[in-house]
Amino acid sequence: MDYSKYFADRVVPMKGSAIREMFKRMADPEIISLAGGNPASELFPSDELSKIAGKILMTQPTLALQYGTTDGYPAMKDCARARAEKVGAVSEGDEILIMTGANQGIDLFAKSILNKGDKVIVESPSFIGSLNAFRTYECELIGIEVESDGMNIDALEKALAENPDTKMIYTIPTFQNPTGTTMSLAKRERLVELAAKYGVLVLEDNPYGDLRFSGEDVPTLKSLDKNGVVFYAGSFSKILSPGMRLGYLIGPAQLLEKTEMLKQVNDVHTPMLTQLMCVQFMKKYNIDTYIKKNRELYGKKCKAMVETMEETFPAGKVEWVVPDGGIFLWCTCPGIEDITPVVDRCLEKKVAIVPGSNFAIDPFAPSNQFRLNYSSASVEDIKEGVRRLGAVLTELL
Amino acid sequence: MDYSKYFADRVVPMKGSAIREMFKRMADPEIISLAGGNPASELFPSDELSKIAGKILMTQPTLALQYGTTDGYPAMKDCARARAEKVGAVSEGDEILIMTGANQGIDLFAKSILNKGDKVIVESPSFIGSLNAFRTYECELIGIEVESDGMNIDALEKALAENPDTKMIYTIPTFQNPTGTTMSLAKRERLVELAAKYGVLVLEDNPYGDLRFSGEDVPTLKSLDKNGVVFYAGSFSKILSPGMRLGYLIGPAQLLEKTEMLKQVNDVHTPMLTQLMCVQFMKKYNIDTYIKKNRELYGKKCKAMVETMEETFPAGKVEWVVPDGGIFLWCTCPGIEDITPVVDRCLEKKVAIVPGSNFAIDPFAPSNQFRLNYSSASVEDIKEGVRRLGAVLTELL
Repeated sequence: MDYSKYFADRVVPMKGSAIREMFKRMADPEIISLAGGNPASELFPSDELSKIAGKILMTQPTLALQYGTTDGYPAMKDCARARAEKVGAVSEGDEILIMTGANQGIDLFAKSILNKGDKVIVESPSFIGSLNAFRTYECELIGIEVESDGMNIDALEKALAENPDTKMIYTIPTFQNPTGTTMSLAKRERLVELAAKYGVLVLEDNPYGDLRFSGEDVPTLKSLDKNGVVFYAGSFSKILSPGMRLGYLIGPAQLLEKTEMLKQVNDVHTPMLTQLMCVQFMKKYNIDTYIKKNRELYGKKCKAMVETMEETFPAGKVEWVVPDGGIFLWCTCPGIEDITPVVDRCLEKKVAIVPGSNFAIDPFAPSNQFRLNYSSASVEDIKEGVRRLGAVLTELL
Repeated sequence: MDYSKYFADRVVPMKGSAIREMFKRMADPEIISLAGGNPASELFPSDELSKIAGKILMTQPTLALQYGTTDGYPAMKDCARARAEKVGAVSEGDEILIMTGANQGIDLFAKSILNKGDKVIVESPSFIGSLNAFRTYECELIGIEVESDGMNIDALEKALAENPDTKMIYTIPTFQNPTGTTMSLAKRERLVELAAKYGVLVLEDNPYGDLRFSGEDVPTLKSLDKNGVVFYAGSFSKILSPGMRLGYLIGPAQLLEKTEMLKQVNDVHTPMLTQLMCVQFMKKYNIDTYIKKNRELYGKKCKAMVETMEETFPAGKVEWVVPDGGIFLWCTCPGIEDITPVVDRCLEKKVAIVPGSNFAIDPFAPSNQFRLNYSSASVEDIKEGVRRLGAVLTELL
């Protein structure tokens, strides 16, 4: 039986993630992956979480195992609030919703505001998970080029002027996925002003903001917003554990009430045990000490990656911006049209990278760019992986 | 600032759950709740789960805390398969997707097939969480009356003939929410035949099927389906823990591939720790022994409820069908138009029940029905709650 006649219009164009397909090809344990977005598992506070989980289930079994409320366990909301207050991302009158990962917040926020045909401005390139979530609401994506200091704001203003019916700007202003770039303060101020001027909502996605290893912090868009146009998605995936699926969404209550209703009919509530574990972890330990270790490790890994790139990449053929934090590094090969042969040859040489087309508004257009991840592999594997990649680039560019 | 101009059309008609509002009023600890749908927390295997959780985080920390795959952890998929095989709910060529609660499977399955204006046939009354999920895809709900042996199948056939563009039939055939009724085998066979004849998909939601305390098991719709039209949503919420949010969706792979993509952009994957806990629980313990205890308890609680109803309800003024399993009992008051005054008076007398309008296709139409839950409260509280309810009914009917 052919089920395609039952498909809703929204899913007809959806294709399985090419990254996921690549992961299947990567079952080979000899492959060094610079392709994923996994945080460093060597630092997970597993001993602490083991004790905490065991104790919660002994002392608060009903709370941990019974149904919870859709908006989140109150003490977990306080944890999210505490993280957000550090970056000025919560204002009076804001609601905080605990999400089963920040991605769920992004998906359901989009569901609450996007009608078919609505326009959404996004960075180009951007995080494929969010782009694909928006696509399921049959909106029109408008891509704005990302420069070394973030979104091209002149291009943003032009796009807003040309598309006054734009509903939302989606941005990852700090250590952007995939480019690793950070939007300057001046651009942030202009973005927030423009959003207010054109009456467009902003969804600020900030999963990597805590992971700075050089340079100075830049204020969040949410903290610069005086008009209630910025909504903020935060995450515990990169500062505690992604497998626990804990994120949050913050913004004016009137709109988030709708997002909450959409969560109620989606997964009812975020699992209770993982919420309670996060609460106890933040109560008993200083999460900032733990984050600091991650930052130091990522700084060291990034340095190892960049140094090996400088040693082994063919001179003048690859361009990149060294990130000040986060987990990604973005490379451009100006002399070629399409990176695919490089990506394929890399897999033969047992190193995995992600072609830029995965992050494009038009995923079928050729891309001469690729993304590298330095949080997941060991320093030694990063060096060996980049050496293999350098050899392929020297051979093919 | 008024955000309503930003709302997507799909969320404009959404109202917060009246059940939820009632729960807020129920903060008063003296209120006996017969309103919720919580399983009995006194039987949660918390000691076992405490040991299991602690050990998983010590011995498999990376697996438990790192990103997982969208379709589910393989051993967890095997657990879901094992449960489904017991009721013939998995066929060759079927995919199994692990969901963050069965509700997520229902929501995302609907998202994968429903265009605006598509028709969905549902039982009337039915589970509000599913109805509200379907409503967010702007479909048209067609309600079919539920009789004491399940959906009126003649009415279903008429509705299918009149609405050949129906895309899906949604049913909870066993111990239905809210009516507690179970569809007969003859009706199940006809439903599956009609679905195949009219080319309509069936979503069988079976969260309560394991909770039979009297009578004989009836085959699942999925097991009767020879044409690949039935999709099956299963849950661990009522047989292990609802707070863990573990459910699954089973059906032909071609369609579930789309549901999986929608899950990937929703919560990426179901939390790993809770999946691993379920796997270890099913490996180390006999979950059927644990389910048997629940069945016995629910049989005892149901009996206490029915006996007290017989003793205290005004003779001839309330009708009900005694369920053979599950957690709900449904009452009709033929002599009145609207149950609201009874529900309000009950809250004054410190007992909470849910008015039937919450489960209706048209939630604004008056209802002379109400739902009682017997899984959550203690036997003593059930008796006292029903006595208070009986006094109110005697006063007002």
